[in-house]
Amino acid sequence: MRLLVIGGDGYLGWPQAMFLSRKGHHVGVVDNFLHRQLDQKGGTDSLIPICSLEERIAAWGEVSGERIEPFSGDINDYAFISDVIKRFKPEAIIHYGEQPSAPFSMIDRDHAVFTQVNNIVGTLNLLFAIKEHQPACHLVKLGTMGEYGTPNIDIEEGFIDISHNGRRDILPYPKQPGSFYHLSKVHDSHNIMFACKVWGLRSTDLNQGVVYGVETEETALDERLATRFDYDGIWGTVLNRFCVQAVIEHPLTVYGQGGQTRGFLDIRDTMRCVELAILNPPAPGEYRVFNQFTEQFTIRQLAELVKETARKKGLFLEIAQEDDPRVEAQAHYYNAKHTRLVDLGLKPHYLSDVLLESILDRLFRYRHRIRKETILPLVDWRKTRNPCGYGPSTGLQGLAIELWGNRLFSEGNGARSWSASAINAVPVSRWNMASDGAVKPR
Amino acid sequence: MRLLVIGGDGYLGWPQAMFLSRKGHHVGVVDNFLHRQLDQKGGTDSLIPICSLEERIAAWGEVSGERIEPFSGDINDYAFISDVIKRFKPEAIIHYGEQPSAPFSMIDRDHAVFTQVNNIVGTLNLLFAIKEHQPACHLVKLGTMGEYGTPNIDIEEGFIDISHNGRRDILPYPKQPGSFYHLSKVHDSHNIMFACKVWGLRSTDLNQGVVYGVETEETALDERLATRFDYDGIWGTVLNRFCVQAVIEHPLTVYGQGGQTRGFLDIRDTMRCVELAILNPPAPGEYRVFNQFTEQFTIRQLAELVKETARKKGLFLEIAQEDDPRVEAQAHYYNAKHTRLVDLGLKPHYLSDVLLESILDRLFRYRHRIRKETILPLVDWRKTRNPCGYGPSTGLQGLAIELWGNRLFSEGNGARSWSASAINAVPVSRWNMASDGAVKPR
Repeated sequence: MRLLVIGGDGYLGWPQAMFLSRKGHHVGVVDNFLHRQLDQKGGTDSLIPICSLEERIAAWGEVSGERIEPFSGDINDYAFISDVIKRFKPEAIIHYGEQPSAPFSMIDRDHAVFTQVNNIVGTLNLLFAIKEHQPACHLVKLGTMGEYGTPNIDIEEGFIDISHNGRRDILPYPKQPGSFYHLSKVHDSHNIMFACKVWGLRSTDLNQGVVYGVETEETALDERLATRFDYDGIWGTVLNRFCVQAVIEHPLTVYGQGGQTRGFLDIRDTMRCVELAILNPPAPGEYRVFNQFTEQFTIRQLAELVKETARKKGLFLEIAQEDDPRVEAQAHYYNAKHTRLVDLGLKPHYLSDVLLESILDRLFRYRHRIRKETILPLVDWRKTRNPCGYGPSTGLQGLAIELWGNRLFSEGNGARSWSASAINAVPVSRWNMASDGAVKPR
Repeated sequence: MRLLVIGGDGYLGWPQAMFLSRKGHHVGVVDNFLHRQLDQKGGTDSLIPICSLEERIAAWGEVSGERIEPFSGDINDYAFISDVIKRFKPEAIIHYGEQPSAPFSMIDRDHAVFTQVNNIVGTLNLLFAIKEHQPACHLVKLGTMGEYGTPNIDIEEGFIDISHNGRRDILPYPKQPGSFYHLSKVHDSHNIMFACKVWGLRSTDLNQGVVYGVETEETALDERLATRFDYDGIWGTVLNRFCVQAVIEHPLTVYGQGGQTRGFLDIRDTMRCVELAILNPPAPGEYRVFNQFTEQFTIRQLAELVKETARKKGLFLEIAQEDDPRVEAQAHYYNAKHTRLVDLGLKPHYLSDVLLESILDRLFRYRHRIRKETILPLVDWRKTRNPCGYGPSTGLQGLAIELWGNRLFSEGNGARSWSASAINAVPVSRWNMASDGAVKPR
């Protein structure tokens, strides 16, 4: 099949592109390199050194004999993405191309607005471009389990059968998202459901849990194929962050009481879940939702597990209870259904101490690259202005406008000017490997 | 109380400002005159001639002795709206300031994107500005009954008590909106609910039905105080449109089978509902929803009622069944609760043939101003590109960027340039009365 991965330079997008390429599909990737740019502004970085997209694609060709086709640009630019879809003619689009961080969206107004506009307009553009050029294309959208919040009843997969005052209907499951980022995903879900209804599009919304892990079968083939690994207070997810803390014997930072329960999955299961969705497409006009995770844990359970596993390797850790920077229930009922992907054939990789040990071993090699100052949470949900390293907020708003409109714009008296074409013109190799020598093109 | 009406130059916003001013409140109005600008671009116009905001405010001062304070600007410009809130210190904000048309949002991609960005960012800006400068301020937000769609169970007021697998919770009522405009309101609702939760803001979301009527006690005091009245395929709502069709003996255009049931209310009840919400504010941190309508009708029932009333006045009408340009159920269960505003003291004005006659009499005076070519629906929900009079879509996207970012921007090689300050500098009187002589400043 012809498959287009949006956000194909990211933590999940890049291994997903290789995974699908290796299965014999013709894969294209679209990316605007937003995360790499924001790392430069904000002082964060992938723990594991990553090659530029150009180098990755070259290495993948060398290792696998398969070609991945790159498209450098922003899906907020309709002319760009509609042209890509017209030319590439994807049978499915896998949409990882959103601003993915909840703390980032809570920094201040500009970051909240950027997150919602970037994510909503990007997805709207995909919907319009699919309808106009490739109406049978299956949109596989990455949503999040965080869309549901923590209701006091079982969480179903997207829809719930409600009996009320003697009547009955199956309705979209109520959403209670916990950040401006999670809200943007809820907005996307509503927009996509509507497009399926009025235009007969087909879409699978994958409400994904928290992903952990550092390696897939494909990234393991060659160091140049490594995917990014984030552990800081902005981009890192909880289990990955705990593992990084472990290798430097930093206290494991549990936010609040640690009774928060969430769904988790291994990065290798993400790869397979997306493939299963693609291989089993919905009917035209169908909008369906799969809850994409394999196990539930409380945050404290994960901290205990990491602590125990690290101890066997001679690393002694404390569990530190930080004030919770988020506004969330500290202990609550949580039972989320997740059978639809298993029904399609998913064989989960469950979290084990063996897997955790292998993650710790892998990360241990890069412990000299850990920026300790970025680990602690910097963003307080209760504040509207958090001092953060992502530049003066006006700068980011400028970026948002530019990305969104793909037009020239100048701020004030032309003291600063930018254009989206200038971004596109930045050679991909600008973000080449860090100079620590761990990875070199052969 | 100090009350700020956003969108205070519009169909409901202007009479609302007068209504509250007359009750002794200190009222400010904010408007960006978007509707007046779009009328100029698109060839639509208010049937009833309306004065400029400057003239309206002057006339109101003359008639009532009360002063309404105007603020000309766009709430998508955070610097502007946060400054207004900082200076005016409102105790409640009544937020009518959104792009209000479903067909407009369905014209094409640019109009969909404009609608969602404009409405979402405007509301986000209000939330941030309230939190930063006036955290006890009560946000009274105009939502729509269209957020719910037409579920097969009773529609509750914002939240529903669900028993599921032996457990129970009260959750946000599931939403199934029917256009990119209605979706923008659903997105707003989720954003506002979240802001109440994390920042302790207080908000009332008024899910309003379809408003009809031309006159309030205040607009009736002086012709210069008239509010706009839209009847065309883009801005007109159904009953107002039928009334205009009646006075020129145009067939009443029912979309599809006419079995669509909706909630309706008299414009005078809108005034009072908002007042009731203001006088009975929610607690800090509370997000509450009132369904704001007084009666349910099918579209065909309304057409029959207008036909019958017109016949008594010697106007003979046909009911014409147009292909439904929207994607919506043609006949369905509909039972929406609407007791909370009645519990607070609302005494509804029900739709009667006497009221309809008075509307027809009022409109009859302006029948020479009816632009027949604008009446029929121009926007097909099933298409992504509808030819419409709102200028080249790039022009509108330009407008969106400019309104959103409030910055200079130039398109292409500077062939066209705009700035938000230029908009603000346009004297309000630019949109003075049409020259038909019906209304002159005294």
